[in-house]
Amino acid sequence: MIKIRLLHGPNLNLLGGREPDVYGSLTLEQIDARIHEHAKSIGVHVEISQSNSEGELVEAIQAAGGWADAIVINPGAYTHYSIAMRDAIAAVKVPTIEVHLSNIYAREEFRHESVIAAVCVGQISGFGADSYLLGLEAAKYTVNGKQ
Amino acid sequence: MIKIRLLHGPNLNLLGGREPDVYGSLTLEQIDARIHEHAKSIGVHVEISQSNSEGELVEAIQAAGGWADAIVINPGAYTHYSIAMRDAIAAVKVPTIEVHLSNIYAREEFRHESVIAAVCVGQISGFGADSYLLGLEAAKYTVNGKQ
Amino acid sequence: MIKIRLLHGPNLNLLGGREPDVYGSLTLEQIDARIHEHAKSIGVHVEISQSNSEGELVEAIQAAGGWADAIVINPGAYTHYSIAMRDAIAAVKVPTIEVHLSNIYAREEFRHESVIAAVCVGQISGFGADSYLLGLEAAKYTVNGKQ
Amino acid sequence: MIKIRLLHGPNLNLLGGREPDVYGSLTLEQIDARIHEHAKSIGVHVEISQSNSEGELVEAIQAAGGWADAIVINPGAYTHYSIAMRDAIAAVKVPTIEVHLSNIYAREEFRHESVIAAVCVGQISGFGADSYLLGLEAAKYTVNGKQ
Amino acid sequence: MIKIRLLHGPNLNLLGGREPDVYGSLTLEQIDARIHEHAKSIGVHVEISQSNSEGELVEAIQAAGGWADAIVINPGAYTHYSIAMRDAIAAVKVPTIEVHLSNIYAREEFRHESVIAAVCVGQISGFGADSYLLGLEAAKYTVNGKQ
Amino acid sequence: MIKIRLLHGPNLNLLGGREPDVYGSLTLEQIDARIHEHAKSIGVHVEISQSNSEGELVEAIQAAGGWADAIVINPGAYTHYSIAMRDAIAAVKVPTIEVHLSNIYAREEFRHESVIAAVCVGQISGFGADSYLLGLEAAKYTVNGKQ
Amino acid sequence: MIKIRLLHGPNLNLLGGREPDVYGSLTLEQIDARIHEHAKSIGVHVEISQSNSEGELVEAIQAAGGWADAIVINPGAYTHYSIAMRDAIAAVKVPTIEVHLSNIYAREEFRHESVIAAVCVGQISGFGADSYLLGLEAAKYTVNGKQ
Amino acid sequence: MIKIRLLHGPNLNLLGGREPDVYGSLTLEQIDARIHEHAKSIGVHVEISQSNSEGELVEAIQAAGGWADAIVINPGAYTHYSIAMRDAIAAVKVPTIEVHLSNIYAREEFRHESVIAAVCVGQISGFGADSYLLGLEAAKYTVNGKQ
Amino acid sequence: MIKIRLLHGPNLNLLGGREPDVYGSLTLEQIDARIHEHAKSIGVHVEISQSNSEGELVEAIQAAGGWADAIVINPGAYTHYSIAMRDAIAAVKVPTIEVHLSNIYAREEFRHESVIAAVCVGQISGFGADSYLLGLEAAKYTVNGKQ
Amino acid sequence: MIKIRLLHGPNLNLLGGREPDVYGSLTLEQIDARIHEHAKSIGVHVEISQSNSEGELVEAIQAAGGWADAIVINPGAYTHYSIAMRDAIAAVKVPTIEVHLSNIYAREEFRHESVIAAVCVGQISGFGADSYLLGLEAAKYTVNGKQ
Amino acid sequence: MIKIRLLHGPNLNLLGGREPDVYGSLTLEQIDARIHEHAKSIGVHVEISQSNSEGELVEAIQAAGGWADAIVINPGAYTHYSIAMRDAIAAVKVPTIEVHLSNIYAREEFRHESVIAAVCVGQISGFGADSYLLGLEAAKYTVNGKQ
Amino acid sequence: MIKIRLLHGPNLNLLGGREPDVYGSLTLEQIDARIHEHAKSIGVHVEISQSNSEGELVEAIQAAGGWADAIVINPGAYTHYSIAMRDAIAAVKVPTIEVHLSNIYAREEFRHESVIAAVCVGQISGFGADSYLLGLEAAKYTVNGKQ
Repeated sequence: MIKIRLLHGPNLNLLGGREPDVYGSLTLEQIDARIHEHAKSIGVHVEISQSNSEGELVEAIQAAGGWADAIVINPGAYTHYSIAMRDAIAAVKVPTIEVHLSNIYAREEFRHESVIAAVCVGQISGFGADSYLLGLEAAKYTVNGKQ
Repeated sequence: MIKIRLLHGPNLNLLGGREPDVYGSLTLEQIDARIHEHAKSIGVHVEISQSNSEGELVEAIQAAGGWADAIVINPGAYTHYSIAMRDAIAAVKVPTIEVHLSNIYAREEFRHESVIAAVCVGQISGFGADSYLLGLEAAKYTVNGKQ
Repeated sequence: MIKIRLLHGPNLNLLGGREPDVYGSLTLEQIDARIHEHAKSIGVHVEISQSNSEGELVEAIQAAGGWADAIVINPGAYTHYSIAMRDAIAAVKVPTIEVHLSNIYAREEFRHESVIAAVCVGQISGFGADSYLLGLEAAKYTVNGKQ
Repeated sequence: MIKIRLLHGPNLNLLGGREPDVYGSLTLEQIDARIHEHAKSIGVHVEISQSNSEGELVEAIQAAGGWADAIVINPGAYTHYSIAMRDAIAAVKVPTIEVHLSNIYAREEFRHESVIAAVCVGQISGFGADSYLLGLEAAKYTVNGKQ
Repeated sequence: MIKIRLLHGPNLNLLGGREPDVYGSLTLEQIDARIHEHAKSIGVHVEISQSNSEGELVEAIQAAGGWADAIVINPGAYTHYSIAMRDAIAAVKVPTIEVHLSNIYAREEFRHESVIAAVCVGQISGFGADSYLLGLEAAKYTVNGKQ
Repeated sequence: MIKIRLLHGPNLNLLGGREPDVYGSLTLEQIDARIHEHAKSIGVHVEISQSNSEGELVEAIQAAGGWADAIVINPGAYTHYSIAMRDAIAAVKVPTIEVHLSNIYAREEFRHESVIAAVCVGQISGFGADSYLLGLEAAKYTVNGKQ
Repeated sequence: MIKIRLLHGPNLNLLGGREPDVYGSLTLEQIDARIHEHAKSIGVHVEISQSNSEGELVEAIQAAGGWADAIVINPGAYTHYSIAMRDAIAAVKVPTIEVHLSNIYAREEFRHESVIAAVCVGQISGFGADSYLLGLEAAKYTVNGKQ
Repeated sequence: MIKIRLLHGPNLNLLGGREPDVYGSLTLEQIDARIHEHAKSIGVHVEISQSNSEGELVEAIQAAGGWADAIVINPGAYTHYSIAMRDAIAAVKVPTIEVHLSNIYAREEFRHESVIAAVCVGQISGFGADSYLLGLEAAKYTVNGKQ
Repeated sequence: MIKIRLLHGPNLNLLGGREPDVYGSLTLEQIDARIHEHAKSIGVHVEISQSNSEGELVEAIQAAGGWADAIVINPGAYTHYSIAMRDAIAAVKVPTIEVHLSNIYAREEFRHESVIAAVCVGQISGFGADSYLLGLEAAKYTVNGKQ
Repeated sequence: MIKIRLLHGPNLNLLGGREPDVYGSLTLEQIDARIHEHAKSIGVHVEISQSNSEGELVEAIQAAGGWADAIVINPGAYTHYSIAMRDAIAAVKVPTIEVHLSNIYAREEFRHESVIAAVCVGQISGFGADSYLLGLEAAKYTVNGKQ
Repeated sequence: MIKIRLLHGPNLNLLGGREPDVYGSLTLEQIDARIHEHAKSIGVHVEISQSNSEGELVEAIQAAGGWADAIVINPGAYTHYSIAMRDAIAAVKVPTIEVHLSNIYAREEFRHESVIAAVCVGQISGFGADSYLLGLEAAKYTVNGKQ
Repeated sequence: MIKIRLLHGPNLNLLGGREPDVYGSLTLEQIDARIHEHAKSIGVHVEISQSNSEGELVEAIQAAGGWADAIVINPGAYTHYSIAMRDAIAAVKVPTIEVHLSNIYAREEFRHESVIAAVCVGQISGFGADSYLLGLEAAKYTVNGKQ
């Protein structure tokens, strides 16, 4: 069974309260429940955690290098500057899928550059909590071989 | 039944021959067959076409405004400059999903800016022909309501 | 009688529906009727058409080179990148007036650069459908000699 | 009767002598006469003045806030940097039309950015002294309601 | 008793009417009353004036060089380009505090660069009319010696 | 009584030794004593802590969301890049005041951009340890309602 | 016999009239006659056409993929933005030579960037209609093997 | 006898006190005395004034258009942004020489761009009050004909 | 005996596996053994640790301020954005040497800017694990006095 | 007989060894032999030399001003920065053709800007040693009159 | 007697022929005669030479370090990139005056940046051969002490 | 025995006098003596020379291609623009080490870009004359095989 490491980046523990029109009204617990349910339905194993600390996320990525077939990560704010997370993804060589709740390319606030994108297999963004479900499927497609 | 318009942009009719290590070895006909098959399996209707002409793609988007519940589009090279396609998507107000075969954010050739991204619901890129299948699912999620 | 070629660029066929608070609620047919009426009132002849295709617009400009005293053009999205239309305007040497419904300089979305502006006599923007009427008058002034 | 405040910015008092092939050979007095004549013919009231001082122009704009239905302004060199004039226009909330004698978008000398454009209803540029006449008409259209 | 020169830059004479949700609904007269009252309560002397003219503000700054212990200035629009005011502040060597009603760093309209900031002791921005009161206190702290 | 969370960012624990001509010669302990004393004198409650870790600061901001009426934060070096702290401030919706000891706009070393400024109520910078005292007062003004 | 596809881009059908001091006074028909004559003299076969439409040019390039040994293309205005033509050239893998009548590097109007150059074998520019003749010879050299 | 208009821009009335190591210790009065003395010695007539107001400087330049053979101007801070002064210089067509006390190209504070330089005959900078004396001689050379 | 603090930044704990052609095939343990051996041979004392956390590295630098004569640091990914580490180095005033395994100036991926370089004594990069040995010697030279 | 000066810039004396897949395997001597042979076959006289020194190349260009009908130059690395060579070409007024062995527009290493291009008649690049042969023919066309 | 080293940079040996409307019609020999004559009249000694070689100019500057009181240099094209000449000027510590025949700030061809300006006392540009005469006087003023 | 070519770039012959606080007080002769002594102590052969001429340095690099095992080069000012030296280093394929006396990354004067860095094995900068000694050791490590 395909084993997937799913990581939530900083501030995602606040979901449900934070700008519900942008991010939906589900809490992170509710989203995690949906992710587990979906993982079961498509036959993959998923381990989930959240952290606000760049260092912890780097170490979670490193640790996944030992067992996971794929990583699904929503890097949150670190998307825009964590070269340390980028290097960790590049180093562990586990195929990684970058996921965002909102369409980050529609926000002009920051240059919508993801420093992480270049070392990932692909990106999925803009579908709210469903981005994670699509991320699981994309991970499954990726592990089974791109066509 | 959800009705989806799927559009392939310029040069995608050459798939199967063009840099197979980047884009996979399936021809566009084979990909379209997989798309139809997947659409059937998830219970959506899809109409597919390809064009090399910006004007034709603008008109195909306009036409979809009359009947489609969602658009899934791989804008190909027009991703980077077709403000006309962008305006068409913004005008028809059909939720649109931008799809790419390769991870466009990993190619430094052009500024990886998509002028189309800001008017789309979301993006999916990097999963080869599977990007289209994920696009269909994302379209379904979108029509059924973001959570 | 002064003969004017008036060209509507891409997506302007959708007027009336598209963001009425920005572009007004008149359809293109209604606008064209007002243009013809105004042309009659100020004693100029006008021929109008719309196209979504850059190539067709280039050829319409080239064709106007054979008979028109002035061109009034709303280049729509092509404003920002159609160097081909720019070259056509420069080549036919018919005085050309660039017209926009909305104030393009108030939108920060794109660099508000018009690649076409430098080869036109002048610009009129921000007055809704009335921009066309002012464009006709500006064309008349231009043909009669700038003072 | 619609009341319009028309303002000439710096160095426009030199018209008639300064680069006649660019700005025409009319003096400012002759232009003002034409403006008054045209105002009469289209049934609007216009008050005209010129200043070389940014502070005076700011105060003229503020004062127009008390009585004018529209402002027509040729900001001259201040186009490119007078954020103070911009703030004044934004504050008085009288619809304002930016007018230029020459096609400022054809001159590459400065970035052709107008810091004033974003707070105006629209722009008219490139038609010599006729730009003012078109400005009056545009002001009339604007006060009567954009269509 | 500490003597403070307080200067309001261009368009601040319009306060009370201009965008009250951004700048508050107090008029400049009401604000000046509050400033005088607060100055009395913290035991400082303040002289206040407003000008729309860059030259007058330069001269007001120069004049303050002769008697004031500190300057509190809201440079308004001149914040972004008045190098002449900057030079005046640098030349008179009176410690100067830059004050803004709104959070200028939250507005993306202009590069939020203040050409004046580098020659000031510090900045206070975002607290409406209270920014002036904080400015008086900051001036007092500054004259009494930074700790 | 108004409850304020005051946060010191990275390296501020070194105060007193580090470049005393820039930052003053008070240690952080001495500064905290002054802050507590001032809080008492103006009748507000303040809780203070310092951290060198971005993740801890994110969590301190999140935690303040549960009880504080305002946050006063000196983000130190994170000012320039911690989008994670920015997101936390935006998410908790507690009014936040950005404070700096030195005039960061006078240092040209980095682009003096604060990625945090846009989500704060306002900024106070340049007054040494007094910046914190002004920050407390600004917080009090803010909670009592901007005028 | 080496088979060459020669493509003229937009507005080149206007040659002979358009700025003869820049582009020479030959019409496109006269130039094509010279090209055919030169092709005969150096023993290569050439098929020539012109189009103003980006989509048609993309398809002409694709079609050449089936039979031509080399492409000689003057992309005209599309030089600067047609990533679709670039992708077509890259995909068909026929060696392509970019040709310009004038020295595009001497015109500062646009950044003289050719988005097409990177996928071509080489460039020839600045020799008027003779650029095409040199292009045929360069194509012959290229097919015969670079030394 | 050659007639020269010499203009001092903003803050130059403070000379003698302001940063003597950069600008010398002479007051403006002392400098003007030296200028008059030097003018006499080389046989030219000079009229001198200083202003802090951009509008006044524009008008002084315009007025010089009626009688002066050359203008020598130290635009001070307006060097960097007064396009209005630039336009005045360009309009009066009196040969103008830009003069600076200090080497403005050695200061990295602002982009050392002079918006005025392009419409002047030449520049002299870096020689303290002697820059004016050199300016007078340069004006004399210019009026007598460049060799 | 000279006391040196040697710090490995994020992801360096993965050495030996990560891109051996770029970083060599030694593990961090093997490298540390070589460093200790070399330290002994040149007569310096070295304390080594690695961390993935920016906050921990900041604190390690602060702690070295109490005892070390020099710091040798490979900041890894934090090279490019950790202004917090930069501030720590600047604050502790221990001479610091920046070391990189690979030639970071040969990689165009990121702007090869090190935000840390300006506060270091010098840099050594490109010699694999030998960069550390050279770093120890450079530290020794530095403590003994630059010549 | 047309007389041509052909100049090889820096490092071209190393040809044959340096990256043969990019520059071909011919030595400079072999290339010069082919150039002489081709010159003879098309009836032109050519004088060839190579230099690594910018000053020598400047003087060789100046000297050609006395006798040559055209210059064919491969400026090598100086392409990107030798404004001195540019000035020499502009000054001698001998029509000059810029030639490159490789397609410099396909290398992203440096901005592919040629500071020399703007003063040349045209450019030929990408055809290996054949670029020189095409350069001779282009020189002949140029001297015989552009058509 | 003040001893001055005067250096002409690359291509200045061509004066008299090169663009006489820009640079005057005097040859370098005639200019040098005027310089010697002027030197005599103001009582300074001058040694003059010209070189096209950056290395030779560096060495001429170094040599002047041994005897000259001032250097007057027209760096020609090297103005824009010779950091080696800049370093030489900075190293020899002889006051140096940068001189240009034409107004380099009026030419938009290159960024009008002089890499040499920052290490010079001042600049004189735009007065043709008279720039050198003014340069001698500026040198004399400089050696006699700036006022 | 490992044979090393050590090259000093422009103005390094002035060492000992030039800014001793930056570059140390040793003359180049004294530094060369230390280099020879150190070379002997670590058992390598070194040949040293200095040149101010870019062309000579290019040729010295080319010549080293025939016999040296490594090059140690301090390119001085040419660091920032000599693409000719870069090409020479790339062509001779002798491993090259870039050395600087001062920490070039701490000087903001120029963009601290080295155009040479990308073709070198590594860089050492900031250790005064000791940079050369470290360069010799780095060369030895490099020839003996990176670990």
